[in-house]
Amino acid sequence: MLIKPGPLLSKIDSPADLKKLDQTQLVQICDELRQYIVDNVSVYGGHFGASLGVVEMTVAIHYIFNTPTDQLVWDVGHQAYGHKILTGRRDNFHTNRLYKGLSGFPKRKESEYDTFGVGHSSTSISGALGMAIANQYKKDDRQHIAVIGDGAMTGGLAFEGMNHAGSTNANLLIILNDNCMSIDPNVGALKDYLTDVTTSGTYNKVKDDVWKLLSKFSKFGKSAQEIISKVEHSMKAMLLKQSNLFESLNLRYFGPVDGHDVHHLTHVLNDLKNIPGPKILHCVTVKGKGYKPAEEGNATKWHAPGKFDKVTGEVFKKVHDKPQPPKYQDVFGHTLVELAEKNDKIMGVTPAMPSGSSMNIMMKAMPERAFDVGIAEQHAVTFSAGLATQGLMPFCNIYSTFMQRAYDQVIHDVCIQDLPVNFCLDRAGFAGADGPTHHGAYDIAYMRCIPNMILAAPMNEAELRNMMYTAQLPREGQAFTIRYPRGTGVMPEWKTEMEKMTIGTGRKISEGEDLAILTLGHIGNYAIEAKEMLKGTGANPAHYDMRFVKPLDEELLHDIFRNYKKVITVEDGCIVGGFGSAVLEFMAANNYSAQVKILGIPDRIVEHGTQLELHAECGFDPSGIAETVKQMLGVKATTPYASN
Amino acid sequence: MLIKPGPLLSKIDSPADLKKLDQTQLVQICDELRQYIVDNVSVYGGHFGASLGVVEMTVAIHYIFNTPTDQLVWDVGHQAYGHKILTGRRDNFHTNRLYKGLSGFPKRKESEYDTFGVGHSSTSISGALGMAIANQYKKDDRQHIAVIGDGAMTGGLAFEGMNHAGSTNANLLIILNDNCMSIDPNVGALKDYLTDVTTSGTYNKVKDDVWKLLSKFSKFGKSAQEIISKVEHSMKAMLLKQSNLFESLNLRYFGPVDGHDVHHLTHVLNDLKNIPGPKILHCVTVKGKGYKPAEEGNATKWHAPGKFDKVTGEVFKKVHDKPQPPKYQDVFGHTLVELAEKNDKIMGVTPAMPSGSSMNIMMKAMPERAFDVGIAEQHAVTFSAGLATQGLMPFCNIYSTFMQRAYDQVIHDVCIQDLPVNFCLDRAGFAGADGPTHHGAYDIAYMRCIPNMILAAPMNEAELRNMMYTAQLPREGQAFTIRYPRGTGVMPEWKTEMEKMTIGTGRKISEGEDLAILTLGHIGNYAIEAKEMLKGTGANPAHYDMRFVKPLDEELLHDIFRNYKKVITVEDGCIVGGFGSAVLEFMAANNYSAQVKILGIPDRIVEHGTQLELHAECGFDPSGIAETVKQMLGVKATTPYASN
Repeated sequence: MLIKPGPLLSKIDSPADLKKLDQTQLVQICDELRQYIVDNVSVYGGHFGASLGVVEMTVAIHYIFNTPTDQLVWDVGHQAYGHKILTGRRDNFHTNRLYKGLSGFPKRKESEYDTFGVGHSSTSISGALGMAIANQYKKDDRQHIAVIGDGAMTGGLAFEGMNHAGSTNANLLIILNDNCMSIDPNVGALKDYLTDVTTSGTYNKVKDDVWKLLSKFSKFGKSAQEIISKVEHSMKAMLLKQSNLFESLNLRYFGPVDGHDVHHLTHVLNDLKNIPGPKILHCVTVKGKGYKPAEEGNATKWHAPGKFDKVTGEVFKKVHDKPQPPKYQDVFGHTLVELAEKNDKIMGVTPAMPSGSSMNIMMKAMPERAFDVGIAEQHAVTFSAGLATQGLMPFCNIYSTFMQRAYDQVIHDVCIQDLPVNFCLDRAGFAGADGPTHHGAYDIAYMRCIPNMILAAPMNEAELRNMMYTAQLPREGQAFTIRYPRGTGVMPEWKTEMEKMTIGTGRKISEGEDLAILTLGHIGNYAIEAKEMLKGTGANPAHYDMRFVKPLDEELLHDIFRNYKKVITVEDGCIVGGFGSAVLEFMAANNYSAQVKILGIPDRIVEHGTQLELHAECGFDPSGIAETVKQMLGVKATTPYASN
Repeated sequence: MLIKPGPLLSKIDSPADLKKLDQTQLVQICDELRQYIVDNVSVYGGHFGASLGVVEMTVAIHYIFNTPTDQLVWDVGHQAYGHKILTGRRDNFHTNRLYKGLSGFPKRKESEYDTFGVGHSSTSISGALGMAIANQYKKDDRQHIAVIGDGAMTGGLAFEGMNHAGSTNANLLIILNDNCMSIDPNVGALKDYLTDVTTSGTYNKVKDDVWKLLSKFSKFGKSAQEIISKVEHSMKAMLLKQSNLFESLNLRYFGPVDGHDVHHLTHVLNDLKNIPGPKILHCVTVKGKGYKPAEEGNATKWHAPGKFDKVTGEVFKKVHDKPQPPKYQDVFGHTLVELAEKNDKIMGVTPAMPSGSSMNIMMKAMPERAFDVGIAEQHAVTFSAGLATQGLMPFCNIYSTFMQRAYDQVIHDVCIQDLPVNFCLDRAGFAGADGPTHHGAYDIAYMRCIPNMILAAPMNEAELRNMMYTAQLPREGQAFTIRYPRGTGVMPEWKTEMEKMTIGTGRKISEGEDLAILTLGHIGNYAIEAKEMLKGTGANPAHYDMRFVKPLDEELLHDIFRNYKKVITVEDGCIVGGFGSAVLEFMAANNYSAQVKILGIPDRIVEHGTQLELHAECGFDPSGIAETVKQMLGVKATTPYASN
């Protein structure tokens, strides 16, 4: 079903068409753009609230600036749907986030209007500053605009970028899209500060007031004038330069302005075009603006609600006739509370992902023991290290892809100090529709090379619970990392009795001959399916769920390599340096020789799609595994499963 | 030679002894402590200027606070020599930074006074906040103090920590040690801001002045009072809350104070003990304070000058009777300028390491093309990505260990976007005396798993120059990483003609039989030495300098594995997931079997020492390599080299 755009929007094939509109038509185009986003996302799903909140900003920027010569960077990028629709991708927009379709984020290879690929937060200032400095050096007169949310502003990278920008005369405009939200409500001191700035009212008048005060007092004669002159210099210095967080960093600060007043925005942006140097425009917006259920309801829910009835605002849910397995994240969230009720040393830490990680369950149940520290992965890890020095047992939950942000902190603050911190990496492996910026592809490789690290992955809910149970038992040192995928497990009855797992032990799932499949984590369930597919082919591989990449179950591996000369390893992670590579290192250290095939994420950027589509593309979906078994065993294709 | 402490200092075995001193003795103990540092460092080497700058602060903190119950975190930690001397390590201090001796940084396993292991910058606020929150939860009434420099304050982690701290009521005192320096002069907008705050004078009086102004005007009667009341509320809000960068983040700000006035410091700290919640004390200090040559000379030189004549301030230099090979960093620095003179697309980026990386050579020669962005590795990488989007060719030089800080940016902003950014990783492999926080141990493992990455390591100066030459030639995409060690190369005549290297090619160094040694980078010179040692033993391995970990020279590897059934790989990097592991992956993918021994950094934290001491400890110094060859070939020990 192709969504029909409104009459004005249907004629906008690029920002050049937008510029042909009369100023009086801008409100209408905003309405049509907003409606088109509602129409599309309600049918096809995707991110929602963020794009609605920047409709006017999007229109105003493309109306005033000369994109793509002027360069626009969207921080994170899930708010860029309007931008995509206005820049030639309207009629493709229904493919958004689908396999082989448009990316859900700006992406350089997709459009020249997407000047910087995004997905993770807080990169826009640094990226746009690089562009601005480059063009200054090239004497290429362009404007550079970074649009960044107040949530993303809490990430240290944004601060580093501002600190550099403020010491340059780069032609950079930072637009602060202040909606008091990350995916969850924004937290931290900066948020409070921005709220103060925005709501005090007085703050915005104070410069004027002070000047008026001084001028009025002049009528009181010489005595007053002396006092005035005495303080005027210091007042000026302070009020004009040091009165604002951003001006402290030498960014000229403008605002706050109403981010939904498109006329005012165009005028302000037009003015700012002529002001050289680094500057910041503070726009106050409402996430979900213009769609009542989103505006008035739970903003977190409307961040990416899935498909919904656009009239009633009812989000569609799949109806199942039998109990379904839970999401891994919910198993984590509930299990953590269950454990924390008995172990008062457990603390929870999340960097701005309370709902995404289900840490919100503990935050609600034990608010004094669970912390959302903002978009600040580095801090989340070092803060957890600090907690651990005092004998507490933190569970720091960070998506695998975002843990890349805290890599140094894991090495330097946790593992070198040998502190017992627990990391739970959600969304490990392919993230699905969010695509390459969000795939948790590298964590096995980058975590297993760190000393004092335990690294495990559960094949199902019970294993996750047992790993968490084991991770909260007292231990002297070592980080304990548990990685698990986005999505659901396999056990509708998941509330299993927990028991201690011996660290570094795997288990045999099924007997077999001639070939052994070694799997790590949830993807092991594919091997079970693959074995089903192989029935009747003569191929009957053994299957082992290794559970731990580090330490490896060496006893089990000795057993395997004594008995099998053909081995397949399967992991939802990069082949280079990953679990399979660890198995090869074991073999080399112990002088085993065997034919080993490593299945996993290949050494290239894999785009977006459903997890299963991507697993199939990479050859480790169930039929990919079955096919590899047959190839290695020389079994001819005899089942329909092997035809692809 | 044991250095004799002064009469007061000789009696200070712990802070308890310090507390016995009378307030009037504090100046003397500061003098003696300073002298003891000068005496030690001039003889034994180590960090210098930073510790001299915090002598009074160190004495005041331990005098006023109840350490180690009150918990003190030193950011970076190279300023903590005075702290170490006052906390029971005075008589061991001559072993500072020596193999098996004291660590050059605070380290939890060394002393209970070292509450948090440090080395990298900007971790102290997060770590101390974790402690403070933990003790608040435990209802354990302690003080928590983080001492952080203005340089470290530019790191995004510090900002993330402040943003969280400011939203809590944690009992945390941040002491800002403002000396306008990183190792090199500090840069960025924050530095300018702090300078303004400190030097304007007016700033510090302005609150008073404004209140005086308002009270004085009251005598002008009702009209004036009305004006006053109109603005008073807004003035208050702004002046008291929003007038300061740190107060914007809800940290109560005190200062600036003279960080060398020990009496005033003790009084201020005593007062601050009783003020609850997160707060910041701004101390202005002079790096190198109290040692004239350091105070008046080049602060960068006196950061860690090596041994020197404490009377004349002359830094001792080794005298050599023949030309020596240069440091790799200087080959980088000079070669970069040489290339940039011919290629106007080349830009240089360093995060606060101009002198350490020798980027200062380009910064001096081409100031508009080389950037010190502050202690901000994340920004350095994303900024470089921004430059690359505009067709420029950045060389971003970051120590291997600090690149851990920018891991996500390498993946997300460079490699996923397939941008041609060049990374030069200095101090790859063992860093030597700086120890585990500074070892560049993991870079091969964490870089080679990223798609669109070229990863190379030169065996000598000529290879470094050729790799840099190759890296600056136009290419479509791919990051190009070149890693090289701390210290000198092997070619006194290093200014070789540069030539294009075919990416992904190694070379044969020497023929041999039965066994092949595959080396990566400078460590390959050890293999040459090892072969010398093996002369006469009957063992004569072949030696290949592989040069590239990624892409591997597959043609050469096919050749090697067709001809050799015994292979040793040698790398100055972690064994887990590193170069050797890449070779195993090649073997598995191509069905080779051979006995492979991987030499490199083992899977544990290796402490400090000279590079050679650490290589020997880990079995890949020249004799370790020779020994491994003999073991694999079954050759009996027949040379003196094999005796260890």
